[in-house]
Amino acid sequence: MSWPEPVESYEPGALFRAEIREQPRALRRLLEHDAEFARIADAMRERGPLVRIVGHGSSDNAATYGVYAFGVLAGRTALRDSIALTVYYDAAFDLTGSTVLGLSQSGQTPDVVEYLQRARRRGAFTVAVTNDPASELAQVAEAVLPLEAGPELAVAATKTYLNQLATLALVAAHVGENGSKVGDGVRSVSEQLEEALPSLEAQAQALALPFAYVGRMFVIGRGPEFATARETALKLLETCRTAASPLTATDLVHGPVAVLDPLFPVWTIASHDQTLAAVREASQRVREFGSTIVACGNAADAIDGAEYRLPVPTPEIPLLSPLLSVVPGQLFAAALARGKGFDPDRPRGLSKVTLAQ
Amino acid sequence: MSWPEPVESYEPGALFRAEIREQPRALRRLLEHDAEFARIADAMRERGPLVRIVGHGSSDNAATYGVYAFGVLAGRTALRDSIALTVYYDAAFDLTGSTVLGLSQSGQTPDVVEYLQRARRRGAFTVAVTNDPASELAQVAEAVLPLEAGPELAVAATKTYLNQLATLALVAAHVGENGSKVGDGVRSVSEQLEEALPSLEAQAQALALPFAYVGRMFVIGRGPEFATARETALKLLETCRTAASPLTATDLVHGPVAVLDPLFPVWTIASHDQTLAAVREASQRVREFGSTIVACGNAADAIDGAEYRLPVPTPEIPLLSPLLSVVPGQLFAAALARGKGFDPDRPRGLSKVTLAQ
Repeated sequence: MSWPEPVESYEPGALFRAEIREQPRALRRLLEHDAEFARIADAMRERGPLVRIVGHGSSDNAATYGVYAFGVLAGRTALRDSIALTVYYDAAFDLTGSTVLGLSQSGQTPDVVEYLQRARRRGAFTVAVTNDPASELAQVAEAVLPLEAGPELAVAATKTYLNQLATLALVAAHVGENGSKVGDGVRSVSEQLEEALPSLEAQAQALALPFAYVGRMFVIGRGPEFATARETALKLLETCRTAASPLTATDLVHGPVAVLDPLFPVWTIASHDQTLAAVREASQRVREFGSTIVACGNAADAIDGAEYRLPVPTPEIPLLSPLLSVVPGQLFAAALARGKGFDPDRPRGLSKVTLAQ
Repeated sequence: MSWPEPVESYEPGALFRAEIREQPRALRRLLEHDAEFARIADAMRERGPLVRIVGHGSSDNAATYGVYAFGVLAGRTALRDSIALTVYYDAAFDLTGSTVLGLSQSGQTPDVVEYLQRARRRGAFTVAVTNDPASELAQVAEAVLPLEAGPELAVAATKTYLNQLATLALVAAHVGENGSKVGDGVRSVSEQLEEALPSLEAQAQALALPFAYVGRMFVIGRGPEFATARETALKLLETCRTAASPLTATDLVHGPVAVLDPLFPVWTIASHDQTLAAVREASQRVREFGSTIVACGNAADAIDGAEYRLPVPTPEIPLLSPLLSVVPGQLFAAALARGKGFDPDRPRGLSKVTLAQ
């Protein structure tokens, strides 16, 4: 007689971990839709040069990235639009000349659906970016971009977030007539990530013990990596009940730095690009307060005095670094939640589809 | 023989408290510049319908309000623009058709100055909004709006923030051809605030004891009151070393709510306007986690189950409510910092003018 094989899905966090590991494959599935990215980009050039991105939670964090993707890759202004202004205040915007990208994993987020409906009536070119092309969001939009992350069962989003970043980069690149180069870049990132995952998982696991009783943290980044800071903080809040607060490296120095002490650590996203000097300068200030620094990103080694480092591969296209630098945060959240006895697949009080207004 | 009179300025926080109390007068000084608001608004209508607002810290919180002010009062799209995209990435934006409002108390914030210079070269109509019309920011801008808050000596901003909100509301109102009504509204708010201050100060003081040992908090609001949530959280971080994190009421429910427990309080900004239902819905979720709720704002009484309430007067123009609802947070920060033995006039590690990039 022998014990039955353990059933993986009964283990808390098994779904979350499996979905983190699936990310390289999910990215490659997305790349099969290149013709659709190009088609949406053509319509955007014609119909709406001003890009408005809306979403909640992880989708809103992806929108932060989208602002940089459109700025850097296409020279276009994108904004994380206020949902409230349109849905609650019915602001009298003329939206002809705007493209709206509505981000929602499920395609069911009520106020994102409502925003798209109203924006379409006001003349915007509306695009639903969702895992479910049959969802309500997809139905109210003029066009749909499938996220192709596949069924995401853990409540805390991972692969959907990465595919949202890649979608925004690919559409922006096509608007900037550079789609095939960025497509190759995303494919290369998926391979770098696949190779790095086992080692990143082991490193993230080793951080769980020192952070087991940490109640509050800052997560800082700058430029596109502010999206990573926001997403890392959200994973820690949702799955580990750690009060992690995202800040740009510059905003940290403009006030919040005063709260720091040796028991208030700062997770620092550092990537090799034009913002690295600002991140290094902020880290210098953090060190003056004696805070423990975790340095993450492809420039983790450039952060002097970091107690812990979680380096990631450097992508061919610098703007794609957030696709890699968020992964140690996901893996750390998985390890810490497990250590604390929490189930990141089903954080208490949350459901996969949030129907709150 | 008698003891000398106590010298108020030797008492920690005396400047901070004096500047909070001065706010009604600072608002009225601003109203003397009505002709300048009107003139800037005329130029904006002609030169730049898209409004880009930049600033750091409290100025960036005011920018959050500006997005709503321009949306509601003028039907214009305003965005908190990315400073990094222009300053670090030199994104190839065509800024003809944009107005830039650069917010800086001192007019010396380096990357705001740099942003304005670059934006002006790219064709934007640039306006410096600052307490110092002789500052570098004022010199690089095409036009200047004086904030008229007067010398602000405490490191943590108060009267500058209120005057920034009023400036944004007044310029937006003039763009929307409604300047005199909103001017009257601001005057009326200054009177309501003057009358309410003594009682608000006593109520905020009474909250200091129960919050003396609170290490982490959320501050939530929705619509224009999200600016209040951001500013309240920043005051608590800077002056009280409380890890206060701002969230929209809706974003709270999309994940971070999972971190809550009875020892993790939520400061809730509730005002009578179109967003109140969403704030009430979020508060209902907060209560399910057993968190202590502080309800602040003119709809504080509408938040069921709040343990503490800090109601403020209701302004004639609903959009002006953030000028009143931030004040209990300022006063609470002053009282709590005093109780903890911190000096809110000079939080350690901060200086009035932040020169960080």
